Amino acid sequence: MDYYQESLHLHRRLKGKIRVQAKMDVRSKEDLSLVYSPGVAEPCREIHKDEEKVWDYTIKSNTVAIVSDGSAVLGLGNIGAKAAIPVMEGKAMLFKRFAGIDAFPICLDTQDTDEIVETVKRIAPVFGGVNLEDIAAPRSFEIETRLQDLGIPVFHDDQHGTAIVTLAALLNAAKVVKKNLFQLKVVINGAGAAGIAIARLLRCVDHDSNSACIAVKQVVVCDSKGIIHSGRTDLNPVKEELLKYSNPGGQAGTLQDALVDADVFIGVSKGDLLKADDIRTMAKDPIIFAMANPTPEIMPDEALRGGAAIVGTGRSDLPNQVNNVLGFPGIFRGALDARARRITADMKLAAAFAIADCVPDPKPEMVIPATLNEQVAWRVAEAVKKAALTQV
Amino acid sequence: MDYYQESLHLHRRLKGKIRVQAKMDVRSKEDLSLVYSPGVAEPCREIHKDEEKVWDYTIKSNTVAIVSDGSAVLGLGNIGAKAAIPVMEGKAMLFKRFAGIDAFPICLDTQDTDEIVETVKRIAPVFGGVNLEDIAAPRSFEIETRLQDLGIPVFHDDQHGTAIVTLAALLNAAKVVKKNLFQLKVVINGAGAAGIAIARLLRCVDHDSNSACIAVKQVVVCDSKGIIHSGRTDLNPVKEELLKYSNPGGQAGTLQDALVDADVFIGVSKGDLLKADDIRTMAKDPIIFAMANPTPEIMPDEALRGGAAIVGTGRSDLPNQVNNVLGFPGIFRGALDARARRITADMKLAAAFAIADCVPDPKPEMVIPATLNEQVAWRVAEAVKKAALTQV
Repeated sequence: MDYYQESLHLHRRLKGKIRVQAKMDVRSKEDLSLVYSPGVAEPCREIHKDEEKVWDYTIKSNTVAIVSDGSAVLGLGNIGAKAAIPVMEGKAMLFKRFAGIDAFPICLDTQDTDEIVETVKRIAPVFGGVNLEDIAAPRSFEIETRLQDLGIPVFHDDQHGTAIVTLAALLNAAKVVKKNLFQLKVVINGAGAAGIAIARLLRCVDHDSNSACIAVKQVVVCDSKGIIHSGRTDLNPVKEELLKYSNPGGQAGTLQDALVDADVFIGVSKGDLLKADDIRTMAKDPIIFAMANPTPEIMPDEALRGGAAIVGTGRSDLPNQVNNVLGFPGIFRGALDARARRITADMKLAAAFAIADCVPDPKPEMVIPATLNEQVAWRVAEAVKKAALTQV
Repeated sequence: MDYYQESLHLHRRLKGKIRVQAKMDVRSKEDLSLVYSPGVAEPCREIHKDEEKVWDYTIKSNTVAIVSDGSAVLGLGNIGAKAAIPVMEGKAMLFKRFAGIDAFPICLDTQDTDEIVETVKRIAPVFGGVNLEDIAAPRSFEIETRLQDLGIPVFHDDQHGTAIVTLAALLNAAKVVKKNLFQLKVVINGAGAAGIAIARLLRCVDHDSNSACIAVKQVVVCDSKGIIHSGRTDLNPVKEELLKYSNPGGQAGTLQDALVDADVFIGVSKGDLLKADDIRTMAKDPIIFAMANPTPEIMPDEALRGGAAIVGTGRSDLPNQVNNVLGFPGIFRGALDARARRITADMKLAAAFAIADCVPDPKPEMVIPATLNEQVAWRVAEAVKKAALTQV
């Protein structure tokens, strides 16, 4: 099937993929008087008296804004707000499909950090959560950070969604190759939104002293210029920050240099970078998550030829698809159900373990649940809700 | 029925009155590849190449933002963004119910004119139109004016919706009492959003030289201090502007003074202001639209006792309900279908005549179609679309 042409036809036929629907039909004058004037004045008055009632009487408790500025959409780059809409509509469908959440695309005609932050604050009243999507790094880090006190969860899925699902896959992969997670040496290629978030989650950077924590022994992050180390003079503040919790040995060199004796490769940048020979230099039974889309950093057959024990990609037509859809629906479901004010490190970790647990008997070609596995979102939601409610 | 308590229970049970729904079910990996990655990249690319394609491949062509700052909600006043949500959800239901439009509530956590204007501009990409709602005058005038070049229709329903439906009722009422619309003397009580817009529409202020026009002979507008005339020193700029097209004789005095020999009273402010004796001072067969909610300026039986020929109110339990729902669904339907860039004076006039025409044989107790009359929105849509497409 030619997905591209088929998808184009589908989009034209449907004229967009979501609709707004009334929860009840308005058939009589009485109905009208209940859902609109005069009856509607009463829930308005109740919310005016006590703002918290907005969770009881409006759509807020089940509604998420999918906010994008269109600056880093799929592999297409900075295509702008309008061209980003089909992706955000698709995401809204998945929120509904997997977790029953009403999500609505908000595509912003600005790419200015301050303007994005203030716009999200201003439109927040009707939403119970905000999913930031396809906003270019490093701007996306600042935007997310500055919105953490909004009172509702603000979650940049390209960062944390990817990190959580990757950790889930890694938990099971380590089990399969019988390695201790704590002792892994991990190489991440890509220092954008996803790469940084994976490094932070694997190194437990965002945990406070009250919460449980799991961290791999060593993370080395590479960008297009090779290993990120303290000797480089071209690092932006976010990459500088990375040095506090990655590359403890101060290794310099290329991605290939980093791979020598590494247990895990995680690719979240460009495709077609590695050969079987590169995999051969890694530690025994290496784990490869080559998640660049649509072309992975290395194709599974090539990686297996190099001795890889486990290979995952971002693609639906290959085994072990590491896909965010395993994360965000359940994460927001759990956060909304707990009325969490933010999505904490504990909740992220709980989500990763819940996803991993959906594969009771992991095997090399099945370390992560299938994308369409119905139970994942609900198990993630339960775990996230519990983590939210038991927080100190 | 106690609408208030009943409505409160309904809102709590439904947890808000609208939902977001996918237009197709995602059942297989293939479905996922069409609505989301990788297939979705193709409509994104097409829109990136040609921005106009956003109308073909996304929800934009059928989606309206209902934007409010919660500063003038129903008769409740400035209750804020969160407390306004139930009204905006109700409005979204009516958009769907009467015109099949997907409308979504955007309740803003700001009441600053500049901030509202810039926020609407920023969130515009996904919307095909903007319905401004329950924003206090005179701020609402400036906001609407400054958004007219957005490229999609921006329509403040409290102004123009009310004015259009009022004109529709007046067209038929004049027919019933056999008076020529052009010769009517009209008194409007209330110089807020609705009152000003009614005065402008009745006096044809916004028409340009290319378009047809209909204007009543004389309009006198009153506010809480009485007749608005040039001798007053307390007028805000919007009321000053009124003097250019109202009260040509420079009459001063009270609302009661204004009513003497007037043919029409239009009330869009506070209730319980007039008695039968006030109506007796008006010209023969006076037309009374007492639209204050929930208590009209004068109850129909009292007005009829004073000699009123026709009485309309805003209430659903009384004859001749002058209700915006007769206007906005069809107006936006027509504007969207024509891909109009604004809602012009011609389109407003066309809407008013289309509404009036839905009552083929008007009678004193039926000068305006019933609120639930199914055909109104579609006839309005046709007329508005035609007006939009035949504009110079």
